[in-house]
Amino acid sequence: MAGSSFGKIFTVTTWGEPVGNGIGVVIDGVPAGVAISENDVQSYLNRRKPFKASFEPAKHENDFVSINSGISNGITNGLPIAMTITNSSVRAKKDENTGKVFRPGQDDFTYEAKYGVAANRGTGNAVWRETAARVAAGAVAQAVLARLGISFCSYVSSIGPVSIRYSSSAVENIGANSLRMPDQEAAGEALSYLEKLSAEGNSAGGTIEVIVSGVPAGVGEPVFNKLDARLAEAVMSIGLINGVEFGEGFAATLSTGAGTADAFTFASGRFEKKTNSTGGMLGGISDGSEIVLRASVMPAPAVGITMKTVDSEGKEVDYAGTAAETTIVPRAVVVVESMMAIALVDMLFENMLSKMDAIRDFYKAD
Amino acid sequence: MAGSSFGKIFTVTTWGEPVGNGIGVVIDGVPAGVAISENDVQSYLNRRKPFKASFEPAKHENDFVSINSGISNGITNGLPIAMTITNSSVRAKKDENTGKVFRPGQDDFTYEAKYGVAANRGTGNAVWRETAARVAAGAVAQAVLARLGISFCSYVSSIGPVSIRYSSSAVENIGANSLRMPDQEAAGEALSYLEKLSAEGNSAGGTIEVIVSGVPAGVGEPVFNKLDARLAEAVMSIGLINGVEFGEGFAATLSTGAGTADAFTFASGRFEKKTNSTGGMLGGISDGSEIVLRASVMPAPAVGITMKTVDSEGKEVDYAGTAAETTIVPRAVVVVESMMAIALVDMLFENMLSKMDAIRDFYKAD
Amino acid sequence: MAGSSFGKIFTVTTWGEPVGNGIGVVIDGVPAGVAISENDVQSYLNRRKPFKASFEPAKHENDFVSINSGISNGITNGLPIAMTITNSSVRAKKDENTGKVFRPGQDDFTYEAKYGVAANRGTGNAVWRETAARVAAGAVAQAVLARLGISFCSYVSSIGPVSIRYSSSAVENIGANSLRMPDQEAAGEALSYLEKLSAEGNSAGGTIEVIVSGVPAGVGEPVFNKLDARLAEAVMSIGLINGVEFGEGFAATLSTGAGTADAFTFASGRFEKKTNSTGGMLGGISDGSEIVLRASVMPAPAVGITMKTVDSEGKEVDYAGTAAETTIVPRAVVVVESMMAIALVDMLFENMLSKMDAIRDFYKAD
Amino acid sequence: MAGSSFGKIFTVTTWGEPVGNGIGVVIDGVPAGVAISENDVQSYLNRRKPFKASFEPAKHENDFVSINSGISNGITNGLPIAMTITNSSVRAKKDENTGKVFRPGQDDFTYEAKYGVAANRGTGNAVWRETAARVAAGAVAQAVLARLGISFCSYVSSIGPVSIRYSSSAVENIGANSLRMPDQEAAGEALSYLEKLSAEGNSAGGTIEVIVSGVPAGVGEPVFNKLDARLAEAVMSIGLINGVEFGEGFAATLSTGAGTADAFTFASGRFEKKTNSTGGMLGGISDGSEIVLRASVMPAPAVGITMKTVDSEGKEVDYAGTAAETTIVPRAVVVVESMMAIALVDMLFENMLSKMDAIRDFYKAD
Repeated sequence: MAGSSFGKIFTVTTWGEPVGNGIGVVIDGVPAGVAISENDVQSYLNRRKPFKASFEPAKHENDFVSINSGISNGITNGLPIAMTITNSSVRAKKDENTGKVFRPGQDDFTYEAKYGVAANRGTGNAVWRETAARVAAGAVAQAVLARLGISFCSYVSSIGPVSIRYSSSAVENIGANSLRMPDQEAAGEALSYLEKLSAEGNSAGGTIEVIVSGVPAGVGEPVFNKLDARLAEAVMSIGLINGVEFGEGFAATLSTGAGTADAFTFASGRFEKKTNSTGGMLGGISDGSEIVLRASVMPAPAVGITMKTVDSEGKEVDYAGTAAETTIVPRAVVVVESMMAIALVDMLFENMLSKMDAIRDFYKAD
Repeated sequence: MAGSSFGKIFTVTTWGEPVGNGIGVVIDGVPAGVAISENDVQSYLNRRKPFKASFEPAKHENDFVSINSGISNGITNGLPIAMTITNSSVRAKKDENTGKVFRPGQDDFTYEAKYGVAANRGTGNAVWRETAARVAAGAVAQAVLARLGISFCSYVSSIGPVSIRYSSSAVENIGANSLRMPDQEAAGEALSYLEKLSAEGNSAGGTIEVIVSGVPAGVGEPVFNKLDARLAEAVMSIGLINGVEFGEGFAATLSTGAGTADAFTFASGRFEKKTNSTGGMLGGISDGSEIVLRASVMPAPAVGITMKTVDSEGKEVDYAGTAAETTIVPRAVVVVESMMAIALVDMLFENMLSKMDAIRDFYKAD
Repeated sequence: MAGSSFGKIFTVTTWGEPVGNGIGVVIDGVPAGVAISENDVQSYLNRRKPFKASFEPAKHENDFVSINSGISNGITNGLPIAMTITNSSVRAKKDENTGKVFRPGQDDFTYEAKYGVAANRGTGNAVWRETAARVAAGAVAQAVLARLGISFCSYVSSIGPVSIRYSSSAVENIGANSLRMPDQEAAGEALSYLEKLSAEGNSAGGTIEVIVSGVPAGVGEPVFNKLDARLAEAVMSIGLINGVEFGEGFAATLSTGAGTADAFTFASGRFEKKTNSTGGMLGGISDGSEIVLRASVMPAPAVGITMKTVDSEGKEVDYAGTAAETTIVPRAVVVVESMMAIALVDMLFENMLSKMDAIRDFYKAD
Repeated sequence: MAGSSFGKIFTVTTWGEPVGNGIGVVIDGVPAGVAISENDVQSYLNRRKPFKASFEPAKHENDFVSINSGISNGITNGLPIAMTITNSSVRAKKDENTGKVFRPGQDDFTYEAKYGVAANRGTGNAVWRETAARVAAGAVAQAVLARLGISFCSYVSSIGPVSIRYSSSAVENIGANSLRMPDQEAAGEALSYLEKLSAEGNSAGGTIEVIVSGVPAGVGEPVFNKLDARLAEAVMSIGLINGVEFGEGFAATLSTGAGTADAFTFASGRFEKKTNSTGGMLGGISDGSEIVLRASVMPAPAVGITMKTVDSEGKEVDYAGTAAETTIVPRAVVVVESMMAIALVDMLFENMLSKMDAIRDFYKAD
């Protein structure tokens, strides 16, 4: 399968270019009988809007979704769901730079190398716009997951050098600051840091944490399609994300086997892990505890600082870029969550085929 | 596709159980005309052997490969390559524990939850044995890559809290110590650390770095099948690996856009990046610089320390496990490298279809 | 992959319902550098219009295509091509019957059984409308094939009991009659036959032949992905098509091995088959001769004749249907051709990866 | 996915060459809890043996299967099933002809064109040997289907010009003659016909019919993955099969819409079709009636009659071949049945994901 589709059973295909006629998504493999409305999808898209902060350049990116097929009377009918997303403020003009300068940190050069055509698509920015289509698909995935009692808690855990302290974090705080950080004090520090960078035309990266509750044990296939492998692929396929870890992640290497081997307990008729070093999986299969993923987001390369680079003819140029957003980390939260939701639905569906008895029950065979 | 295959065009399917009749692999989509012998494959398998250290329990795991199809007169013929791997020292007996105790950090519980059958496969250890089949497939992938001038440099960058210093590292050192660390001094410290853990029956994790040279620009698809997404999936599908990052990775979040946007230069008729913060990719597509991946390996959960857990009936037990290996990190190096090689071949092949002119050249159409 | 996508490398995903907001298609894996315009696509859609015959109910089905992404300045840019097709005359109202009566020969019942929701999608007719999206994708596939010197000759070979005679057929005739038959006399007889059926409210099936010229030898994979297997799947996925054969097809069983084993000759520096019993393939791989496929199209079940059937509550009803079209066979020609073109591009691309030397040439490795 | 795998969820991968070390198959996506033994598989392989007839050259092809993984204590455990098939009588020597003469009707030429290596695999015969691996996989698929109450009735419906008469056919007869024809008289005529051909060194083709009972309504996806499309692909991927039709097939074109639109009835609490023109499907989805498939098998090209052809240097030669089998049609029956079983399991599993309520039931979500 070519590279614009994700998922084997629950399959999401996105399309669109910044200079083209909108962007969109086709979601195939959605079961019939799921209630979903344009408003539901819109509420996820709204979480992807640039946050309004004093230091941030005014940017009106209002994405509006329309559902074209797959839903009858507010309920999925089993046919593919097609959605189109339009944005009145996206300028339908070519970025006059593109195709001339290989901007630092951006994908002008790699598009040129791969496709050999003048990459007049706005590239960097284009890639980021495509994530709106992923969020629309994620909304559908979350509608499925909600019916199975699965929910997400997602937030920003660091911006530049400013990290949250878990001891002073609370879920309620996430919505209370424009940076979606659960620690109000850290959010304040991060805002100060961002103001300073903004004044320089510079940009910041950060980390995002997602905690998924309610995933039953048994999801994930034991060899290549491990749940962590698929979630990592899903999240790493988002532009600017350059690292993914689960549970204790890289820090687990500082501990020992005795320190990270999560033991089991049995309480209220249910097996549970006493600790969760692995972040919700054992051997690539969900173990019923919370899935914990952490991703790093690179600082956006579109900065308002003049840098030396070359153009497509190899001539050295001073490239004076325009700062886009001081940080995209807060709005990337819903994108990460959406990709995880899409991958999870795909694997939950695959898991249903792991036991012959369940298959017989479905088909009511005697 | 079910979960025991990896790759879309160059497809690797593994099979096997520790208690079964060997393990094996089928590799489909191998082009005709690649020279490869059993000796070539065997040399990769040998890199996966447990290292001999004073403190390490003697464990004879000698894997021997035989090629059953797909190669005629030492050259691939276009048909699928099937290989079987046998190991004289694998005890063909059931682990008497399995199916009774849910061992801490191991996958007894998740297999039970998923398949509902007594998991008499040795699990944990089983999963690790399957990686021999991946290494055999990786050897074939590397034979393809070598023809394209692509090579790997892989090593251990940390064991527990002991990290290499880049300033005192050298490629030549990698083979000079049993831990495959390029820094001899760090290797010495790590050996002391491991001796201490070994005495306690405990185990250590660590990190692995892989640097791939010679990958041409243009490899990777721009939306979901980004090169980093596929490499992350490939590497995260290895048991005990719980984190993957590229280039500067998580540390890039501490820098800024101005600090991480790699600018281009033009020298000797070739575009090059002056720096490589992103680890060889821009927008998910290779940019011609080195691909740099870092993975974290959890400490193995099979330790010789008694821990409290429960059995499959929920009864609390004191589980006195047997330490397997004090650290698997050195022998995981070739496994990580193999999964990267497999994913790379798949994406190099897909990239060949990105330009109409190249397709016409292939078919010599006028 | 869910069922609304076709192809592994060159992937076509369609969406749409008759009562929804248009229909559409996303084509992924299109190489950059192919010239294609909305007019090109429109000309294929025009071939799918109902033909105007005296006896045929006036039906204005004017499909208009718009291209939303993937094409810059008239040239493909490597990103997915999204197209939407609108039809002013499609009535945006529910078929009031649907969901009540299980119409004979139509898919009301199977949708109900599969999705468990009232199938308010117009079913039968809906399915047929979706083929417009396939034709739009086929136009893109044919633009690729044209660059490789591959072309199609497609026509109706029988309507009901009236078959063309090859001795009195000529390619020029195909466009000269509304039934797209290469034999003018047979076309006349078929028109008389259809007039009679039309008067009764009845409908006719027929057969379609497609001959593909210019396919190089070597296309198709030798095991499951044989060229004939993939073409059969592609064509059989069209509604109402219930039979596919290649070359001499079923009639070959009346001959013998000596009669059907096509021998080779060598002329003008090129190997050729003296005969073509197999229809362009040997062992599932194209042999450089013409690919010959024949498909049977069932008579459309939507007839203007009252029939006894049951409703969804099991109550027997007299269902008085409305005749749709007396025959869809002529307009199905371009649909069959389109599906073959889509499958062919996918397999031509896969074939490029069969030889290591060609891969090295592409990557200019030394 | 490369071409040696079939199926998306229930995935079968075959490998092997006639001159290599046996052949084999890996079956992934088998649910845990299915009882299956080597004897079960062997009984299917035995149906693929060449039949013993006076006129047939003695050919000892005794395939023996061994199961290497995926089954514990006679029950599938969810891991991939690997099986190897050995045949003591397969001569481990090169066919000295291969690589020199392009034999009429065989795939020497297409392999050479595709892979560019001397095709020393025995080709034609090789391809046919690979079908043993498909039959082994089919045995596993049938074990799954049996648990769902689905069964097959398969037979030869014609050999050369000799067809069975349905009026004088009976299921009991199928096993009563070596040609697997349900009509004893036709079987007698066919044997006489084959004796005559055998004396000449010639070969015969024929047709095979398969009737599948017990398939529930709802199986098959409505767009590209129609049940008939997937079954056609599965069966057409068998060497020498060059035509597939469902229900009335090509003959339906001689009837009309009124004659072929199957109406529904309701009896014993169950919806049923009164007739079955379409062969068990409506709109590509199973309708609960019998699935009826008919396939044509070309006469084998390996005949003992000297024919003019060319060698790989283009020089004309008189090729004196050796007759292999006068007809492979009877032993192809179980191969066709096996491919249908494999495709059916894949689609039954996919169908389980079509309704949200069923998914909730599986996960016991409230």
